[in-house]
Amino acid sequence: MVNAKIPRATAKRLPIYYRYLGILFNSGKKRISSTELAEAVKVDSATIRRDFSYFGALGKRGYGYDVKSLLDFFKKTLNQDKLTNVGLIGVGNLGHALLNYNFHGSNNVRISAAFDIDERITGTIQSGVPIYPMSQMKEQLVEQQIEVVILTVPSPVAQRVTDELVSAGVKGILNFTPLRVTVQDGVRIQNVDLTNELQTLIYFLNHVDQQDG
Amino acid sequence: MVNAKIPRATAKRLPIYYRYLGILFNSGKKRISSTELAEAVKVDSATIRRDFSYFGALGKRGYGYDVKSLLDFFKKTLNQDKLTNVGLIGVGNLGHALLNYNFHGSNNVRISAAFDIDERITGTIQSGVPIYPMSQMKEQLVEQQIEVVILTVPSPVAQRVTDELVSAGVKGILNFTPLRVTVQDGVRIQNVDLTNELQTLIYFLNHVDQQDG
Repeated sequence: MVNAKIPRATAKRLPIYYRYLGILFNSGKKRISSTELAEAVKVDSATIRRDFSYFGALGKRGYGYDVKSLLDFFKKTLNQDKLTNVGLIGVGNLGHALLNYNFHGSNNVRISAAFDIDERITGTIQSGVPIYPMSQMKEQLVEQQIEVVILTVPSPVAQRVTDELVSAGVKGILNFTPLRVTVQDGVRIQNVDLTNELQTLIYFLNHVDQQDG
Repeated sequence: MVNAKIPRATAKRLPIYYRYLGILFNSGKKRISSTELAEAVKVDSATIRRDFSYFGALGKRGYGYDVKSLLDFFKKTLNQDKLTNVGLIGVGNLGHALLNYNFHGSNNVRISAAFDIDERITGTIQSGVPIYPMSQMKEQLVEQQIEVVILTVPSPVAQRVTDELVSAGVKGILNFTPLRVTVQDGVRIQNVDLTNELQTLIYFLNHVDQQDG
């Protein structure tokens, strides 16, 4: 069913739709209009209809959307029916917070292994997750078939660690370091730059005439 | 000089340009081509030229960009010449990590006050930042003229706390909670949803034919 190219902005909204549909379903809601959904997720209804149009006919005119079928559709599209094990590289302050972050609980994403150089924590289990020394990173990632990692190492070692991750077969990196790392084709980097988020917010506050284009 | 509407995607890249120009300047680089800058920041050169075009003529054809003037321009545009005090609402695991996060050090953004309900930490100073009880939030935000906050409270109280923030005159909220909070016009919300980031990454890995549109 999915054959058009999905814009990144649309893809980023899919988990939001999925999450809110779950809340609506659990509250006993059977069907919903795009206007109601818009109100719940804070995305305008024209955008919702356009996003949904990439996936073919998900709703019926004059009826709206069937909550259960929409939920099932997104569950499948977002691979929520299968568990994705994720590695955490670097257990400093931010890494430690992410270990304790439940990623909304309901989703099938789990940090299953963490890596650090600090010998005070390696060999221990923190929040249910084993912390391995960096020297065992490649071996463990291969053995546990982990293809997605969260990178929270200090910037100066970010590129070197990334090279090692790629050589261990990692295909996706959620990069929390401020460094824009280089990878070969076929490996996807998603940057989460907290300073940038804050600066962008401040930028827009100081240029109130410049809202989103 | 800034009179066109700046797309959000462009605004989000400005801090990256600024940061890398600082690195280049400190390394003694005087001028740079858009191709060289593209390589450094991992943004293609056509996008860089388009981004820069919103700000008028920043470079000269055949010469490239003068690093110092570009740096000064972005410094001014991003208000890096003035300190922005930011409040942190909620000092749990993530909040605590953000207290210790240096927001790249070089930028003029600083968490100057934090708020929590936990009496074991209120009244103390953590990482140089005073932690006030939530009951003093409004009073302190007004007194310290804090208009930008980072929201890391539990979801169930996110909307209530947001209403209080708005009534205290807060104009910008970096929202780390999974809740899409409602605010009146004139208040800007920037959502940083870590579960979404991870799910979007996994989505693209499972649909490799669907790269960014």
